[in-house]
Amino acid sequence: MNFEKGAQLYEGKAKKVFEVIGQPNKIWVEYKDTLTAFNAQKKSSFEGKGTINSQVTSLIFKYFAQNGIRTHLVQDLNARESICEKLEMIPLEVVVRNRLAGSTAKKLGIEEGTPLEAPLCEFYYKNDGLGDPFISDDQALVLKTVRDRSDLEKLKKKALEINQALKTFFLEVGLELIDFKLEFGRDGEGHILLADEISPDTCRLWDTKTGERMDKDRFRRDLGRVEETYREVLERVQKKWGSL
Amino acid sequence: MNFEKGAQLYEGKAKKVFEVIGQPNKIWVEYKDTLTAFNAQKKSSFEGKGTINSQVTSLIFKYFAQNGIRTHLVQDLNARESICEKLEMIPLEVVVRNRLAGSTAKKLGIEEGTPLEAPLCEFYYKNDGLGDPFISDDQALVLKTVRDRSDLEKLKKKALEINQALKTFFLEVGLELIDFKLEFGRDGEGHILLADEISPDTCRLWDTKTGERMDKDRFRRDLGRVEETYREVLERVQKKWGSL
Repeated sequence: MNFEKGAQLYEGKAKKVFEVIGQPNKIWVEYKDTLTAFNAQKKSSFEGKGTINSQVTSLIFKYFAQNGIRTHLVQDLNARESICEKLEMIPLEVVVRNRLAGSTAKKLGIEEGTPLEAPLCEFYYKNDGLGDPFISDDQALVLKTVRDRSDLEKLKKKALEINQALKTFFLEVGLELIDFKLEFGRDGEGHILLADEISPDTCRLWDTKTGERMDKDRFRRDLGRVEETYREVLERVQKKWGSL
Repeated sequence: MNFEKGAQLYEGKAKKVFEVIGQPNKIWVEYKDTLTAFNAQKKSSFEGKGTINSQVTSLIFKYFAQNGIRTHLVQDLNARESICEKLEMIPLEVVVRNRLAGSTAKKLGIEEGTPLEAPLCEFYYKNDGLGDPFISDDQALVLKTVRDRSDLEKLKKKALEINQALKTFFLEVGLELIDFKLEFGRDGEGHILLADEISPDTCRLWDTKTGERMDKDRFRRDLGRVEETYREVLERVQKKWGSL
């Protein structure tokens, strides 16, 4: 099927979104090469970063489709662009943690890397102006981010199912999934679908042998070898899952 | 009954706690005149502040006793000191909000004073070193602040019952209860009892006629007339409820 790119709808920190001419229920997603952290207070970029995240996301979303997890992906156009369902986005970042790391480990006074007995599922209010604050379920309802409490339970259930699938996906390429962020949206029929991306930008991935950080923490924490690491994640994923 | 003050067990920002000689299940609580805000980064004091908070708390706890809400209060000794049950304290600050105010209104991007359709109940991890961070129910369990999820539900239920009683208590003296903080502990039989204090230090109270702040926000925000306001809250409460 041929698609024709329409007007730009939105430009975010890592992606641009365009209309698809004649297809009001679809969007055209283009991944950018920019890297940002700490609510875009820290910025960088490298050539090819967008194509890496786009390809990693597409492989994960294809793996999910084969495992019964619906996503917004319709089809890839090339290494950097894809066609997706147009959704009414839910303004929540849904975070799942298998080990405590980053600001949450610090906030709770628990050593980074501490494994959790059960995965933690958290909501953050997606609002750049407010710095995407951590919120409780009740606050998510006060903010009318979803329709009711059962929507929050659905999001948690989906996020934990995704965690199971994603842990396996990455473990098969020697990466432990420490935590990750998801975004969801609602299609025209009201179904909640996984949207946005899953990539080294949105996951913490630690090499199962060396413990090395294979994700955006290399950029956040100035650990060096950012580009090489992103490329290695893509290579590992393509080698194992490229035939999906 | 006569009580004999023993060794100091603990000194907090607003109270000192002592043993009661020969009564291992009791504590001797003495209210201090210090006023602190923002995790004690801002400090002050005025003579008599301790006696005000002690007396306001005692009247509220007597009112609660008459309304079937158990607290740790055993008896007053004088205007500044009381005997309380010794509890195993739960390291949570339980906050109930009827209107959004302060840092939470700011965090959520909602105007201060916005009424809530239903009261919000929130948990903060009581840990000065970490700045008493806001936590989710799941994080409260990770931190082992309570035994299990049913304890959290019990705390919420108790906090919302207390909210109903406390709203009435203050409304009768021309004060609207905007939000407040509670602390709970467990007695020797495992029962969860309300502990700590309820005072202009731990509540937001707005005059029902003028909207004037009648609480620690006068100190936090440098609104002036801190001492006069605390005294007026005590006077109103004593006039209406002093015979309890």
